[in-house]
Amino acid sequence: MYDFAAEPGNNELTVNEGEIITITNPDVGGGWLEGRNSKGERGLVPTDYVEILPNDGKDPFSCGNSVADQAFLDSLSASTAQANSSAANSNNQVSSGNDPWSAWSASKSGNWDSTDGWGAKPEGTTTQRNTSNNWDTAFGHPQAYQGPATGDDDEWDEDWDDPKSAAPYFKDSESTEAGGAQRGNSRAGSSSMKLPLNKFPGFAKPGMEQYLLAKQLAKPKEKIPIIVGDYGPMWVYPTSTFDCVVADPRKGSKMYGLKSYIEYQLTPTNTNRSVNHRYKHFDWLYERLLVKFGSAIPIPSLPDKQVTGRFEEEFIKMRMERLQAWMTRMCRHPVISESELFQQFLNFRDEKEWKSGKRKAEKDELVGVMIFSTMEPEAPDLDLLEIEQKCDAVGKFTRAMDDGVKELLTVGQEHWKRCTGPLPKEYQKIGKALQSLATVFSSSGYQGETDLNAAITEAGKTYEEIAGLVAEQPKKDLHFLMECNHEYKGFLGCFPDIIGAHKGAIEKVKESDKLVATSKITPQDKQNMVKRVGTMSYALQAEMNHFHSNRIYDYNSVIRLYLEQQVQFYETIAEKLRQALGRFPVM
Amino acid sequence: MYDFAAEPGNNELTVNEGEIITITNPDVGGGWLEGRNSKGERGLVPTDYVEILPNDGKDPFSCGNSVADQAFLDSLSASTAQANSSAANSNNQVSSGNDPWSAWSASKSGNWDSTDGWGAKPEGTTTQRNTSNNWDTAFGHPQAYQGPATGDDDEWDEDWDDPKSAAPYFKDSESTEAGGAQRGNSRAGSSSMKLPLNKFPGFAKPGMEQYLLAKQLAKPKEKIPIIVGDYGPMWVYPTSTFDCVVADPRKGSKMYGLKSYIEYQLTPTNTNRSVNHRYKHFDWLYERLLVKFGSAIPIPSLPDKQVTGRFEEEFIKMRMERLQAWMTRMCRHPVISESELFQQFLNFRDEKEWKSGKRKAEKDELVGVMIFSTMEPEAPDLDLLEIEQKCDAVGKFTRAMDDGVKELLTVGQEHWKRCTGPLPKEYQKIGKALQSLATVFSSSGYQGETDLNAAITEAGKTYEEIAGLVAEQPKKDLHFLMECNHEYKGFLGCFPDIIGAHKGAIEKVKESDKLVATSKITPQDKQNMVKRVGTMSYALQAEMNHFHSNRIYDYNSVIRLYLEQQVQFYETIAEKLRQALGRFPVM
Repeated sequence: MYDFAAEPGNNELTVNEGEIITITNPDVGGGWLEGRNSKGERGLVPTDYVEILPNDGKDPFSCGNSVADQAFLDSLSASTAQANSSAANSNNQVSSGNDPWSAWSASKSGNWDSTDGWGAKPEGTTTQRNTSNNWDTAFGHPQAYQGPATGDDDEWDEDWDDPKSAAPYFKDSESTEAGGAQRGNSRAGSSSMKLPLNKFPGFAKPGMEQYLLAKQLAKPKEKIPIIVGDYGPMWVYPTSTFDCVVADPRKGSKMYGLKSYIEYQLTPTNTNRSVNHRYKHFDWLYERLLVKFGSAIPIPSLPDKQVTGRFEEEFIKMRMERLQAWMTRMCRHPVISESELFQQFLNFRDEKEWKSGKRKAEKDELVGVMIFSTMEPEAPDLDLLEIEQKCDAVGKFTRAMDDGVKELLTVGQEHWKRCTGPLPKEYQKIGKALQSLATVFSSSGYQGETDLNAAITEAGKTYEEIAGLVAEQPKKDLHFLMECNHEYKGFLGCFPDIIGAHKGAIEKVKESDKLVATSKITPQDKQNMVKRVGTMSYALQAEMNHFHSNRIYDYNSVIRLYLEQQVQFYETIAEKLRQALGRFPVM
Repeated sequence: MYDFAAEPGNNELTVNEGEIITITNPDVGGGWLEGRNSKGERGLVPTDYVEILPNDGKDPFSCGNSVADQAFLDSLSASTAQANSSAANSNNQVSSGNDPWSAWSASKSGNWDSTDGWGAKPEGTTTQRNTSNNWDTAFGHPQAYQGPATGDDDEWDEDWDDPKSAAPYFKDSESTEAGGAQRGNSRAGSSSMKLPLNKFPGFAKPGMEQYLLAKQLAKPKEKIPIIVGDYGPMWVYPTSTFDCVVADPRKGSKMYGLKSYIEYQLTPTNTNRSVNHRYKHFDWLYERLLVKFGSAIPIPSLPDKQVTGRFEEEFIKMRMERLQAWMTRMCRHPVISESELFQQFLNFRDEKEWKSGKRKAEKDELVGVMIFSTMEPEAPDLDLLEIEQKCDAVGKFTRAMDDGVKELLTVGQEHWKRCTGPLPKEYQKIGKALQSLATVFSSSGYQGETDLNAAITEAGKTYEEIAGLVAEQPKKDLHFLMECNHEYKGFLGCFPDIIGAHKGAIEKVKESDKLVATSKITPQDKQNMVKRVGTMSYALQAEMNHFHSNRIYDYNSVIRLYLEQQVQFYETIAEKLRQALGRFPVM
């Protein structure tokens, strides 16, 4: 339909208007398809740049697992549509002018844009790839996800977290962060949910429509129950829970040692049987969880990919610690931990079982907003106003908490720097100055000052010890406070999209009256829509209750730990100084 | 003799070569005389620029009290002769070529110049008036002392610490230091002994010669005994000691309120009878003590003069505290506290007694190196080698301690800045961030987190309190450590001149063999010289023993105090945090 000039090195295919392309893979993910032109050249083309010519009367998107995925990806990336070049954007606008649902998109982005600065909040060290998208401004550039390209296992096994083969899209997110040295803000961009961004996302695909307007939702085998407990709607928690220990990082290699990677041992506490996974397997899991549950449950992104120094001990330790935190977080979630996807990741018996499980997961159609079709709240229907209020309240809270968490991260990072930099240096200088003075005093030749000089020397050494204590302390307390806030920042980064999906659904229900009036849908259809949005709302409430109870537990634990360690720290210093004082002669 | 161009605004008189000036005041101090030219213009002229034409056959300098003063001033300022313009300097050299003692001066300055950086050590914030004098470089510019101009009490009463009438020479030392806000280095220049600098000092006046070579020293009524105790030579300590309480600063005014000043009440603890003194009276005392005892005893300078904001409460408090420390220091010194000069300052009964005492003090001829003539050590004669070794040891020690003290002052100042600036700000931010988070949490609408949120708020407030504690702490501990080191820096700044005088005397003795050989002096004269240098050495040793015992006491006290306060500080923080921790619910 439009000219498309391939970006060199991106495996793209240049397409001219009117040119006919043979689709070799209709859905490589992220709004791209793979095609072959008349010259036999193959490459990727944005789906929006081509018009599918029917060849067998069947929607080409409905083959395989692509429809639901695409719908979800598009619904998630709707809010990032503004991020694209104005040329691509104006194309979208022309097209979306005919779409009755496009109003939601406009109202939604208007909504977010008008919030008092959530989006506009400047972020210290994030690299900005585009500035028109407020969410992007707030959380840094999302990593452009390139998807597990095809089902081809050979290609999949390519070491794409290796610097040599790293896709160019990862480049600016895989910047120079070195191990655990940089914290907080430096990770701002990557700790938010990685949106499976389309490079040129189209107008809203029928994902939400499909869920809200389906005459009858297929009864899926999978069921996610929602009950109403003391605190309102809640997920059903399994009777026995488990954690998963991430340990024993080992360097492996393949291709005769040309490529190397780190493999981690994962041991679920319920089975006690270990499986091994590389980082990219985690990343695959993250991606599938996001596709499947991301409309309902915040899935915080994995610890950053790291291009340089991947095998430095410190970095591996830090990554493992964070992978552990991430796994624990997933194990704690009643919906995720019980899902087949997650279970399969931890419990496959051999390579074959892992690969077949992987293929099955990739073909799963109950993804995106369709996940709500698996939920059956045992609760009365909600009216739209209540749904909207609940949704707004969640939006308000998560936005405010996001600000609070970021404030703490900023302050914490500043404090970290001072405690590990200038402050211990100063204590060291005080220590050295006292010791020099004692040395000078000892040269006086005056009798009877040996005790004093020994005491001053000791006091000087004590201040040098204090310097060491000060520099080490953040690892004992501030570190955990930072990690916790960092995790929560990751969670909170998922909410704008979750809330966006909900607001989108609400908008569609609101506009459904027009459709009823013009007989495009029946009043029963509308009834179903309200009920289904109600289900979404119950899911949101259940998730928020899960979130809150975890938040309360986590912050209570981490602040307690922080204070305990701080008390101990100051007591240790006081004790050391008291000892030093005790050495001074009484005159 | 030479052309002299008056500096405008300095009350100087331009003189041309050959012009005859009527001397109206032959000694206004500092190497200046007051004269009147043929046009009737009056003003100051450097003594070196004029040749005194005898009018009555009597040396015009011998009138009044000026000889001894001048001798002393010159002996002290000999080491600063290099500081002057090369033109003036070359004049000195021509003249001093005929002086057999000039060799000492050269050797002395060579000596100090060659020291490994004592003189060359750069000083943070001192203003440099001339750079050729190493001692100057080390301790900043000494305040050019203008002497208590004449015996004229009216002129004396002029409020010369008033900004309007402040002599221009004080201008750059009376810079912008505001109250106690700036510390340490900023006071570097002024805390050293104020050398009564001649602007154009002449060749060495016969002070030292007079003392060393006098056939018979007049037996003065005044006697300063030196005995040998367990620690070697020592001053004789009075059986009862006293302190002097400086209190009750009051604003006074004169000239119908046009001029105002602060008057302090001084109450010696032995008499309990108060006298009042203004800062300029302290300055007079300091000056007279320096003139009288400065060759033997380090007299630390007074707290800085202050032009702007002299009546700000904080400044007055700080100055009073430092005047108190200075007075206590003087009271503690067995020689100074017992001197008529000092006693008279504290014990006059009325204005008349004060004025007559003042006049008497100004006429005192036992000043400069002549003070040694009042000392009679009850100890065996020393040989020159031993004298020299003792002197070198003192030089080495005081120089090393000077470095040590300055290092501590530098570090302390840095620490002060951090503790009162960025550190408490950071704790405040941590406190605010915790409180914001608690506020956000409270808005969640989730039940059962009231306790947690109250606890987080409390923890936040605790960190705000800690911010306050951190900011206030330096006043409780570091302040005293700084003041003590500051005082000692003042003492140590006096030693180069004291040691310079001693080395000068030693050099003269060394060169006396030549004079004996050429029969300019008798072997008995030389014998006397060695004995007198020995007396100087005993005095130096007695003073060093006084210095050391005070140093040990002072540093022991101040570091103890510092550590005690630090222990309490860290314990208080630990306790506050423990309380905050106690409020967190146990889950």
